[in-house]
Amino acid sequence: MEQFHDWGEAQFIEHLLKKFPAKNTIIGIGDDCAVIPGEQGKEWLVTTDALVEGIHFLKEQISARDVGYKAVAVNISDITAMGGEPKYLFLSLAFPKNVDPAWVYELVEGIKDGCDKWGLFLLGGDTVGSKRDLFLSLTLLGSGAKAKLKFREQAMAGDILCVTGYLGDSGGGFRALQEQIAKTEDVQSLIKSHCHPEPQPKQGKWLASQKAVHAMMDISDGLNCDLSRLVKCSQSGAEIETANIPISAPLYRVSQENGWDPLELALTGGEDYCLLLTVAPEAFGPIQQSFREQFGSLLFEIGCITENSPEIIYHNRGKTIQIDYTNFKHF
Amino acid sequence: MEQFHDWGEAQFIEHLLKKFPAKNTIIGIGDDCAVIPGEQGKEWLVTTDALVEGIHFLKEQISARDVGYKAVAVNISDITAMGGEPKYLFLSLAFPKNVDPAWVYELVEGIKDGCDKWGLFLLGGDTVGSKRDLFLSLTLLGSGAKAKLKFREQAMAGDILCVTGYLGDSGGGFRALQEQIAKTEDVQSLIKSHCHPEPQPKQGKWLASQKAVHAMMDISDGLNCDLSRLVKCSQSGAEIETANIPISAPLYRVSQENGWDPLELALTGGEDYCLLLTVAPEAFGPIQQSFREQFGSLLFEIGCITENSPEIIYHNRGKTIQIDYTNFKHF
Repeated sequence: MEQFHDWGEAQFIEHLLKKFPAKNTIIGIGDDCAVIPGEQGKEWLVTTDALVEGIHFLKEQISARDVGYKAVAVNISDITAMGGEPKYLFLSLAFPKNVDPAWVYELVEGIKDGCDKWGLFLLGGDTVGSKRDLFLSLTLLGSGAKAKLKFREQAMAGDILCVTGYLGDSGGGFRALQEQIAKTEDVQSLIKSHCHPEPQPKQGKWLASQKAVHAMMDISDGLNCDLSRLVKCSQSGAEIETANIPISAPLYRVSQENGWDPLELALTGGEDYCLLLTVAPEAFGPIQQSFREQFGSLLFEIGCITENSPEIIYHNRGKTIQIDYTNFKHF
Repeated sequence: MEQFHDWGEAQFIEHLLKKFPAKNTIIGIGDDCAVIPGEQGKEWLVTTDALVEGIHFLKEQISARDVGYKAVAVNISDITAMGGEPKYLFLSLAFPKNVDPAWVYELVEGIKDGCDKWGLFLLGGDTVGSKRDLFLSLTLLGSGAKAKLKFREQAMAGDILCVTGYLGDSGGGFRALQEQIAKTEDVQSLIKSHCHPEPQPKQGKWLASQKAVHAMMDISDGLNCDLSRLVKCSQSGAEIETANIPISAPLYRVSQENGWDPLELALTGGEDYCLLLTVAPEAFGPIQQSFREQFGSLLFEIGCITENSPEIIYHNRGKTIQIDYTNFKHF
C-alpha cells in the first residue's frame, strides 16, 4: 500500500487544484489565503491552519497556552503575507475524553492572548471528541483593499529577493527541544521563537502598500520550500547568496556549541513566520530605508529573481554551491 | 483528574461565550452560524463542523465518499437553518502516514459531490499529518439578506413548533450499523439517512423568507437536545405531543423487528439535518399548505412554544409523560 510520504502533500494539493478550479474572480487553493470579492474594492481573505498533537507539538515541550497563541499567530501570518487585516476567527477543536480540562482551558487562554493582541473576534467553531489525539484547526477571515493585495505569482526577473527577519531560530528551538540540550539564555531565545512566534502584520500591511513590492508570502515551511513555491507560481527562478541569509547571534552561537549547521536550519527549519518578498530593483534602496525607519529592523537582501523557472541556485560568496538538505520533518 | 464527559461540551461552550463576547453588530458563538455584517443588506454566515475517525464515523461502516459528502451536507444544513445561501468551502484535513491514498482521494470525491450538488467552491484549507486518527474539519461561508435571517432566539410563546422531516432515521441507521443487523431494504434506507443525509437548503430559504416563521435551527444532535437549545436561547419553554412526531415507515418497521423504541431514536438519535422551526399560530395553516405545494412534503406540527422557560413537557395523546433518554452518544 502506498503511504502518505510516498505520494505527499504537494501531489495531493495538485489534485485538489485540478478538482476544484476557482472561479475567475476568486483566488483559491495555492496562495497563503483564498481571496473572495467583497464590496467597495475590499476583498475577503480566508486562511486555515491545523495543528495536531504529536505532529506539530508535543505536550511535554510546549505549554497549552503557547499552542493556542501559536495557532492564532500562524493564521495571522498568512493574512499578513498578502497585505490583509485579520478580523474573525473560527475554532475547530477535537480532544479525547481523558484530556485534562485545565489543559484545554489554558489553550483557550492562549487563543484569547492572540485575539487580544491582534484585535480579533472568535465567532464560532465546533468542539468534538476525538479517539486519541488532540486536533486544533483555526480559520481566520481578514479583509484587504483589492488594489493592495500581494500574491506569490507576481515576482519578476530582476527583482531583489528579501526577507523581513532572521531565519532558522524556530527550527533551532525545535531541535533544542528534541535534543533536550541545556536551556542557556540563547537556547531559551530559540525555543521562544518556536513556541511563541511573532508574525509581522504591520510590516506586511506596509509592504503590501508599496507598488514596487511584487510578490510576497510568509515563510512557514522553510525558505527553500517556500521560495520553491514562489518561483513556481511566478514562473521564474532565483539566485540566493547564502552569506546574506540572516542568522541570529543566538542561533549562530548555539549551532557552534552543538555542531549544528545554522544554514541548514535557516533554509529548512521552517515556522519562521517572517515575510519573503520580491522588490523592483530600482525601488529597493528607498523601500529598505523606509522599512528600517518605521520598524527599526532590516529588510535583508538575500538574492534575486531570475528567468530560469523553477531553478533556485545557491551561491556562497559568489561561488555556486550544492544544497542537499531534506526539508523540515515533523515528529 | 476530571475527564471531558465530567465537564462537557455545554460548559466549555459557556466558557468560550464568556471569554469571547461578540461585538454588538455580530452574532458569534451559540447559533448555527456566526453572522458577520456585509454590504448592501447582505450578511456573511460562517459555520464549522468537524468529523473525527472513530468518533463520528468508522471506516468499516461508511465509505470515504460518503464521509466527504456528509461533511459538506452538515455544514450546508447549518447555513440553511438560518436561511442563508452556502457559497465557499475550506477544508482542514489531518491523516496519518499509513492512510490508504485511495481512501483520501475518495473522500475528496465525496466533497466534490457535495460541492457540485449545492454549487459550492472549495477555496482552500490545510492538509497535515496526524499521529493516528483521521480528522476532517470544514468551514463553510454563505450569505443571506439581513432582514430574512432566522435565529434560535426568536421563538414566541404560542408559536406552533414544527419539523420539516421524519426524525430518527439517521439514528436508526447508526444503530443498525452498530448492531450489524441484516440489511433489509428498510434497514438500507435508514443507513442511507445516516451515511448520506439530505439537508434542506431550498426549504430553509423559503421558510426564512416567511415573516411568520420566528425561530429556526437544524436538528443535528436530536430533537430533545436541539429544542432545549432553542427554548433556552428564546427564554421560552415547549410542549410536545409525541404522537405527532413524524416517524418514517421504515424506522417504525425496523424498530418493531428489533425491539427498538422509535420515539427514543426520534428524540435523541440526532443527525436528522431537517429543520426545527416555530411559526406564528395564525399563519401556520397557509404556510403549511404552501410548503406542501412547493416541496411535496409535510411541515409536521409537533407542539407549541410556552412561557415556562426552559421547560420541555412531553405529552402522549394529551397525557403528560416523563422522557428519560440519555442523549446520542458517539462510539
